[in-house]
Amino acid sequence: MDTAILDALAAAVGPGHVLTEPDARAGFERDWSGRWHGDALAVVRPADTGQVSAVVSVCADAGVAIVPQGGNTGLVGGGVPRQTAPARPIVLSTSRLDALGPVEAATAQLPAGAGVTLAAAQRAARDAGLDLALDLGARDSATLGGLAACDAGGLRAMRHGTARRQIAGLEAVLADGSVIASRMSGMVKDTAGYDLGALLVGSEGTLGIICAVRWSLVARRDARAVALVAVDAIEDAVALAQRLRPALASLEVCELMDAAGMAMTAGHLGVADPSGGAPWTVLLQCAAAEDPLDELAAALERAGVGERARVAADATGRERLMAVRERHADAIAAIHGASVKFDVGVPLASLAGFVTRVGEVARSASPGAELVVFGHLADGNVHVNVLPAQPVASGGPEEAALDEAVLGLVAECGGTVSAEHGIGVQKPAYLRLSRSPAEIAAMWAVKRALDPAGLLNPGVGLPAG
Amino acid sequence: MDTAILDALAAAVGPGHVLTEPDARAGFERDWSGRWHGDALAVVRPADTGQVSAVVSVCADAGVAIVPQGGNTGLVGGGVPRQTAPARPIVLSTSRLDALGPVEAATAQLPAGAGVTLAAAQRAARDAGLDLALDLGARDSATLGGLAACDAGGLRAMRHGTARRQIAGLEAVLADGSVIASRMSGMVKDTAGYDLGALLVGSEGTLGIICAVRWSLVARRDARAVALVAVDAIEDAVALAQRLRPALASLEVCELMDAAGMAMTAGHLGVADPSGGAPWTVLLQCAAAEDPLDELAAALERAGVGERARVAADATGRERLMAVRERHADAIAAIHGASVKFDVGVPLASLAGFVTRVGEVARSASPGAELVVFGHLADGNVHVNVLPAQPVASGGPEEAALDEAVLGLVAECGGTVSAEHGIGVQKPAYLRLSRSPAEIAAMWAVKRALDPAGLLNPGVGLPAG
Repeated sequence: MDTAILDALAAAVGPGHVLTEPDARAGFERDWSGRWHGDALAVVRPADTGQVSAVVSVCADAGVAIVPQGGNTGLVGGGVPRQTAPARPIVLSTSRLDALGPVEAATAQLPAGAGVTLAAAQRAARDAGLDLALDLGARDSATLGGLAACDAGGLRAMRHGTARRQIAGLEAVLADGSVIASRMSGMVKDTAGYDLGALLVGSEGTLGIICAVRWSLVARRDARAVALVAVDAIEDAVALAQRLRPALASLEVCELMDAAGMAMTAGHLGVADPSGGAPWTVLLQCAAAEDPLDELAAALERAGVGERARVAADATGRERLMAVRERHADAIAAIHGASVKFDVGVPLASLAGFVTRVGEVARSASPGAELVVFGHLADGNVHVNVLPAQPVASGGPEEAALDEAVLGLVAECGGTVSAEHGIGVQKPAYLRLSRSPAEIAAMWAVKRALDPAGLLNPGVGLPAG
Repeated sequence: MDTAILDALAAAVGPGHVLTEPDARAGFERDWSGRWHGDALAVVRPADTGQVSAVVSVCADAGVAIVPQGGNTGLVGGGVPRQTAPARPIVLSTSRLDALGPVEAATAQLPAGAGVTLAAAQRAARDAGLDLALDLGARDSATLGGLAACDAGGLRAMRHGTARRQIAGLEAVLADGSVIASRMSGMVKDTAGYDLGALLVGSEGTLGIICAVRWSLVARRDARAVALVAVDAIEDAVALAQRLRPALASLEVCELMDAAGMAMTAGHLGVADPSGGAPWTVLLQCAAAEDPLDELAAALERAGVGERARVAADATGRERLMAVRERHADAIAAIHGASVKFDVGVPLASLAGFVTRVGEVARSASPGAELVVFGHLADGNVHVNVLPAQPVASGGPEEAALDEAVLGLVAECGGTVSAEHGIGVQKPAYLRLSRSPAEIAAMWAVKRALDPAGLLNPGVGLPAG
């Protein structure tokens, strides 16, 4: 059976783009953290939407599951193969779906293949005098298709929204091999039927395979100002975000870091801790057409935190302050090693309560654990890193207890178990904490309607239904 | 049977809110244009989401169809009753779902019931120092729920997007009476499962009944500048829009009017035609925190149209110029009477070709007809008004020939048969011109999954399937 399928896949994309050798497959079969891995029948690399459709049709006929993969930068295991029955799945890599541009000036939209990296798309936008608003650390590998499939957020969502708000159109292949297009002609207004594209955004490759997008660009705002503000209590950090956001139109980054993370990252970078050891630190970045430094400084004065603020004097200073935030994950990995990470969201009004209680709650499941909490303050999106006293086995009972404890607290605070990383294979069991039985039933109804055989990324996104 | 249903509905919402008398029902059974009408078993007015759920459950048990209705300002008949079997439908009016605010400053979101009018929501936003970006002529009657259900566009979509981009969250009742909530806690980032809310936006009440929304607000920009530019050819109008949009960040209205419409409206308003009889007129409005008049004037000079531009000198002048555009529909109705109206979208690059050919195409189906074309130039969204030489019977063969001719040309130009009004009961048969069989099949799969008995707004949105 396998030979016939592989022959059909080779006929669809060319034999050089069906990777079956273990060495060639290996990089696609394991996520970058090493936490999730599995065996694929093959890695298949179609070159255009028509080839994606052909690949899906071959798999549908053969009952072979499909794991779509972009830059393989996901954090919840949704992009690497897992055990499927009766056959192993294929990995459908979007790497060759790399058509890019040109930028359409009249609509400020950038058409691009799903496999284009965020960094390449950002460069294309900037070369055309505009900017692509979404930004995150994995920009050199993460692809537009993956960002769309996961409704990525990142650093600047507080101003520009998540991927959903920036995707003007998309083209995708459904589970039966059919091609759908949603607003791919650049028309902003189009109310002819349900917006299937909007449904696919954030569906993690389980309802269709995104092949191309039109990304809405924004004005280029090259003048920046960055400040770090040390505060004594999490309530002060939240209050500062609540106050600055409406008052400072140019604000586009508003991040939170705790003392443990600041100390670790400063140590890792070999610099003095710029917070001076404060319990909490808020990082702010403004972007505008003209220098927003005075505006930022004045807003900090009015907020009564002028004396606790450290404002970058120049580009080098701005980069240094931003690096302290962006290198948190690296620092934790280098200094502590493995940690149990949670990407959660809590309404801003409940964030202080959540952060205050999460340490005790985590330690009830993992005695002696230390915590590092940082994230996107203005979005109520925090990354809780639990550094256990002893290594925690992946998939073992202590990890499950931690999941239940931390995500249970999230639910108690009215939050979401996934703010920006998605559900993947990590969190399907916890979806019930943020979504009602009726909502999960409706999601399953949609899944079964569009993928009745369950071939698209099985095991991802939804609890067993 | 009817008595038992009416009793159950009365138990759900209170007897005073189940309207069964013909006089009381009449206003809900006919659209404002008078074109569509039907009989309802009753008009039911629930006061909150729980009551909506109870009403839907009663109807689901009894097999009674539900027609959701907001401000009854729709233009495609999707909000008034039509013949359903075995029983007449109910109209579910959202008028009592009128909870409003307060504006949440930290997230710039306005929570509101589906029955709140656009004008009331705009006032609440402005009172809080912000603005609600969506705007259209029916603002005093159109409701937020209806705008969401139809993905309304309006005058300022070129800058702020359609309703879809502005809806931060929504709460709805599905066909089985279950309640779903999507981002109703103000969290911008939430990737826990499919975004059912995004699917409901633009679904015209066929997948669920929207009960409440969270609307994203924008900065208040009270300084305005307005100009009319007369041009000699439609190609010049398109080129002007393509040139000004990237160059003029404050531009938020960019409208097109033809000579016939300008003459008719000026006559109707009793003013001199401000275009001086030019073949085409472009209306521009900029909005900013500080007076954008110089910026607009300079951009017009650079575009080489300074001499053909008429810039409003003050608020009265701005209102006068805007009124000429906004009163087009009134003028046509007053001077000509009934017309056959098309709301279509065409990619900007194809707009000149479409507009050039549409008159001849329309007259091939309706000999001697005159045309008035106006609309949202930057969006490629034009309203084609066919003024027939003789009255055209609603639902008759001449109307069908006109539909086929005009909408066929739209399809040939790669456009959409519905830009901002929706499909309703007017255009299901023409959805195939803008959507592939695979797309329509996928829409039907979703519809059957979420509303297997077909009780929510049957006959609307999709062709018989």
